[in-house]
Amino acid sequence: METINLLYEGKAKKVYSVQDERYVLVEFKDDATAFNGVKKAKFKNKGITNNKLSSHIFQILEKNNIKTHFLEQLSDRTQLVKKVEIIPLEVVARNVVAGSLLKRTGLPEGATVDPVIVEFYYKRDDLGDPLLNESHIDLLNIISPDRLRELEFEARKINDILCEFFKSKSLRLVDFKLEFGYDHNGDIILADEISPDTCRLWDSETNQKFDKDVFRFGLGDLTESYAAISERLGV
Amino acid sequence: METINLLYEGKAKKVYSVQDERYVLVEFKDDATAFNGVKKAKFKNKGITNNKLSSHIFQILEKNNIKTHFLEQLSDRTQLVKKVEIIPLEVVARNVVAGSLLKRTGLPEGATVDPVIVEFYYKRDDLGDPLLNESHIDLLNIISPDRLRELEFEARKINDILCEFFKSKSLRLVDFKLEFGYDHNGDIILADEISPDTCRLWDSETNQKFDKDVFRFGLGDLTESYAAISERLGV
Repeated sequence: METINLLYEGKAKKVYSVQDERYVLVEFKDDATAFNGVKKAKFKNKGITNNKLSSHIFQILEKNNIKTHFLEQLSDRTQLVKKVEIIPLEVVARNVVAGSLLKRTGLPEGATVDPVIVEFYYKRDDLGDPLLNESHIDLLNIISPDRLRELEFEARKINDILCEFFKSKSLRLVDFKLEFGYDHNGDIILADEISPDTCRLWDSETNQKFDKDVFRFGLGDLTESYAAISERLGV
Repeated sequence: METINLLYEGKAKKVYSVQDERYVLVEFKDDATAFNGVKKAKFKNKGITNNKLSSHIFQILEKNNIKTHFLEQLSDRTQLVKKVEIIPLEVVARNVVAGSLLKRTGLPEGATVDPVIVEFYYKRDDLGDPLLNESHIDLLNIISPDRLRELEFEARKINDILCEFFKSKSLRLVDFKLEFGYDHNGDIILADEISPDTCRLWDSETNQKFDKDVFRFGLGDLTESYAAISERLGV
């Protein structure tokens, strides 16, 4: 598909306009960043792996009646998606204590979170993507309380689907980040990506980490970890 | 009143047991700390001023049917209060954008917050007193959702009373921190202190700061600021 203009370049993706204004083309880069861009590196073929994994996962979600921006994988690094107006919230679902939940609560890493916790972070790099509660979201006029409930409900449904999927591949979905947007009808649909960049995935038995924490904390070879995930998922 | 044992020494107060086990004696120190204890200093008579101001404010709240731990001011630096089991939450009410709300939202300092925001922070110095949402509080099993609503309701009532009181003294109550505890009947009552250590207070006209921010950000003489508040409140 012919791209027209680079609309946006993020840390891990580029977004291009295409002829049909309802759609955009997303290109997955090999860049990895952590700690709000403080740690940076390139990993050969990371973009290819993430595009493949995210395409696969979005197709699973679509089959389970989750409305997403995904249309089709176009090439190794690109996919065609519906153009959305991104809601500036990172919606995080947590099944297991890790990452910032560990620092926030002092609970032991690996402890089960039941019921699942859904958190909202303000998508603002300049502020360090801070946690928001519902009244902050209201003050910032980001989204109405009803539509916020809709986001939380969708995140819980997606969590159920993904937990079951990863469990069948002997992986524990520790936590993950979602982004949503408004399509041209004003409906809220799932956008962005779901990949080991945006999920914590541990081996169900050994708790070995296969996600971006491998890069964040120098736990091994990120390319190998992502390849292992890819192989396990049969993608 | 005769004290028996030092039960607890905090950053700004000491708590002693007394003969009657239902009560404790609180002594206000001259120490000031900021940024979770990173910045420290002593200010002559700060403890005296805060004891006086907090006693006055708790008496106003009691008159307005707020249940508090306060019994009576005993001396310059001491007050007798009901012994409580403190709930490990800092309950913060915000009427104006300042401090961490400014950093969290990127909204301009001084902007009005309407409706009032009530936040809960985990009282854990070792974790840096992080913001919690309701599901974190539930996970940590700190307090039931119903009693959390009770805390929020009390904080809003207290805010209404204090805003009116400070307004009558040409002061703007920007935000403040409350702590609650269970008395010997298991009832939730207001505890800790309310003073320029725990409130942001600005001049209604000029927005001049009279609170602990003077110390936090080196804006002038803390002793003078607290004395000015004391004079304005006629305490």
